[in-house]
Amino acid sequence: MTERISAVETVDVRFPTSRQRDGSDAMNPFPDYSAAYVVLRTTDGAEGHGLVFTVGRGTEIAVTALRSLAALVIGLPVAELVADPGALMRRLVDDSQIRWLGPAKGVVHMAAGGLVNAVWDLAARRAGKPLWKLLSDLPPERLVAQVDFRYLRDALTEEDALALLRAAAAGRAERERLLLAEGYPAYTTSPGWYGYDDEKLVRLCRQAVEAGFDLIKIKVGGDLADDVRRMRLAREAVGPTVRLAVDANQIWGVPEAISWMRELSPFDPYWIEEPTSPDDVLGHAAVRRALAPVMVATGEHVHNAVMFKQLLQAGAVDVVQIDACRVGGVNENLAILLLAARFGVPVCPHAGGVGLCELVQHLAMFDFLAVSGTAENRYVEYVDHLHEHFTDPVRIRAGRYLAPTAPGMSAEILPATLAAYRFPDGPEWAAA
Amino acid sequence: MTERISAVETVDVRFPTSRQRDGSDAMNPFPDYSAAYVVLRTTDGAEGHGLVFTVGRGTEIAVTALRSLAALVIGLPVAELVADPGALMRRLVDDSQIRWLGPAKGVVHMAAGGLVNAVWDLAARRAGKPLWKLLSDLPPERLVAQVDFRYLRDALTEEDALALLRAAAAGRAERERLLLAEGYPAYTTSPGWYGYDDEKLVRLCRQAVEAGFDLIKIKVGGDLADDVRRMRLAREAVGPTVRLAVDANQIWGVPEAISWMRELSPFDPYWIEEPTSPDDVLGHAAVRRALAPVMVATGEHVHNAVMFKQLLQAGAVDVVQIDACRVGGVNENLAILLLAARFGVPVCPHAGGVGLCELVQHLAMFDFLAVSGTAENRYVEYVDHLHEHFTDPVRIRAGRYLAPTAPGMSAEILPATLAAYRFPDGPEWAAA
Repeated sequence: MTERISAVETVDVRFPTSRQRDGSDAMNPFPDYSAAYVVLRTTDGAEGHGLVFTVGRGTEIAVTALRSLAALVIGLPVAELVADPGALMRRLVDDSQIRWLGPAKGVVHMAAGGLVNAVWDLAARRAGKPLWKLLSDLPPERLVAQVDFRYLRDALTEEDALALLRAAAAGRAERERLLLAEGYPAYTTSPGWYGYDDEKLVRLCRQAVEAGFDLIKIKVGGDLADDVRRMRLAREAVGPTVRLAVDANQIWGVPEAISWMRELSPFDPYWIEEPTSPDDVLGHAAVRRALAPVMVATGEHVHNAVMFKQLLQAGAVDVVQIDACRVGGVNENLAILLLAARFGVPVCPHAGGVGLCELVQHLAMFDFLAVSGTAENRYVEYVDHLHEHFTDPVRIRAGRYLAPTAPGMSAEILPATLAAYRFPDGPEWAAA
Repeated sequence: MTERISAVETVDVRFPTSRQRDGSDAMNPFPDYSAAYVVLRTTDGAEGHGLVFTVGRGTEIAVTALRSLAALVIGLPVAELVADPGALMRRLVDDSQIRWLGPAKGVVHMAAGGLVNAVWDLAARRAGKPLWKLLSDLPPERLVAQVDFRYLRDALTEEDALALLRAAAAGRAERERLLLAEGYPAYTTSPGWYGYDDEKLVRLCRQAVEAGFDLIKIKVGGDLADDVRRMRLAREAVGPTVRLAVDANQIWGVPEAISWMRELSPFDPYWIEEPTSPDDVLGHAAVRRALAPVMVATGEHVHNAVMFKQLLQAGAVDVVQIDACRVGGVNENLAILLLAARFGVPVCPHAGGVGLCELVQHLAMFDFLAVSGTAENRYVEYVDHLHEHFTDPVRIRAGRYLAPTAPGMSAEILPATLAAYRFPDGPEWAAA
């Protein structure tokens, strides 16, 4: 009997993080970290978990999108699906009617990514491997077949991708041994939220250095005098050698980004993240030219591989910040990792929120093992919120992510959490 | 008593256009033209109508988005709302939680645009003017205040916009007289749908020329031999002087677009529309450099003003094709018209579908009167489908749109149509 996808379940789950201003920045003052959560079930009782990360209002739109796309998934044969998730990705992204609502952007694309990630979770569980291991064990030809090259060939062809992956095979066993022993570098954003007062900023910066982090990120962009004071305090707290990145969360236009960052340059910012609209490739290039050697980073809101391609072609970024839940899932992130490797630009994934650390660590570890082949100047963002709600939470030691060992993509939320935080009828919300 | 928005009603309305392959192209073989339709009601019984154009599946996602955003509209005071729709646009686009699902792209942005357009429809009805007249009668300062310049100032400042609008004041009365007497140029896509056979293509091309059109658009990109044959037939049917544009609907990557279009160049294409991904600014620039003097056109899928800004900055387009229902409504289209005028690039709006002709004609006529100040080499797309479902349908005479005279944005669909084509329970669908 052919096992098939028998059900696609969705949950609107929201955490009231805005009450403590955890996660606050200049553009997002009061986020409630949330997820449009999805579970694939198979006729033989297996499961694949995925999610679309959101920050509160609008999660119901993502849930609707997941349900609409689920019609294209239910009934698919499991063995074929897990052998080629790229076929599903193309079907979801290129559906000739739903495509009008993107294409390849916004809610429908995030929902496609949530479903594709759930398929990879299912595939890794079936294989009995954590996703980073499943991916890095795939032969280069199989990986290349998982990428949609339609709009990428002016920057990256199938042959380019094969050559990159084959070159990265050298030393992989030794890197895997290192990864299992020491983990993958992390940086922390926990000290720098916009809504935290100066005392909390300084205290958390010191704690972060003591915990082993050598890169800390501070939110900026609300008030220049505040930013100057906070950067001075942070720099004094961490000393001259710890790297301090800053993040404006798109608050500025191009001229404003340049003038504002010049005022922060005395504090030696490592990168400026999201200086302006994530759509503005040419704007990022202008900011980068003006501010060098301060690096420019973006990606958590960059909606697909075509945009990343242009950021790289235009010399607009020093750091590519992939997000596990923004683009079309593992497959499109594979394309982005390959593009970044082709241009020699490091990938430092965006994480935080709810579940983003759990998911994206797999992609960074895969990049280290099988794509870029290095962890130099690479970090996965780390925020110490909400991990307790996952069945396979991230583990951090001495400022590094330890490699997950459980089969899957670490995307599963505890049933008790789903029940408690379901919106709007879970007890955590019904009481509010 | 302060009049307020008392209700926001939505309808999922779909037309089974795929049964005749009306509207078929290489990327969209079987569209069912549809709309997430929205009506604002006020406490004094006034109405504002808007819509998010879609092509079938997924319309329910846009309806959900409209309902989510409606919570930010219900209860607003009408007089303030119609005096400053830009304030609502910013509130909808910048909502600090919903913003995560964009920002300013995809379903949530289209829904914001539908609501903003409905406010402009309400405003024009209250003023007793068609929208083109309401807009062109506004003083430059009022128009400039309706634009969000945050991410545009590296290409267009408030001062630039004011100067453009003030310069266009000269000759406006004479242009308005001309517009009312002769209408605004149209081009037709009706002959060139991909699913039509050769005989129908030739017959409709001849009819279009007889009806007074001097620009006809042909869909390409499925099969090269078919395209060569169809272009030869179309060119023979229309003669050497009628302009023939071609439209690939994003089917190609950059190298493929260039090589394919070289095979069609013997038939003197006027422009190539959507040669590749609408996100690929640098790709369009490369295609344009390679194919000149064939012009490059895009815009129906370009998701916001930041993308149009870059297409213009990069010299990537010869023709800007705004869409009434893709971006954040009249306000963002005003920004795009100003950007195009600043760069001296003509705007030839995308239309067709359902309602797009009705809505966008107002923006083209406003551009003629008050922004670019010219209709030279400008056309609004025209497709002769589904106009009978509107209370104020477009009127075409001798290949030109006659100026609407009814107050509003011409967005209202007949109640009988909404009842008949409501999805999935209207009789046209329940029977299928």
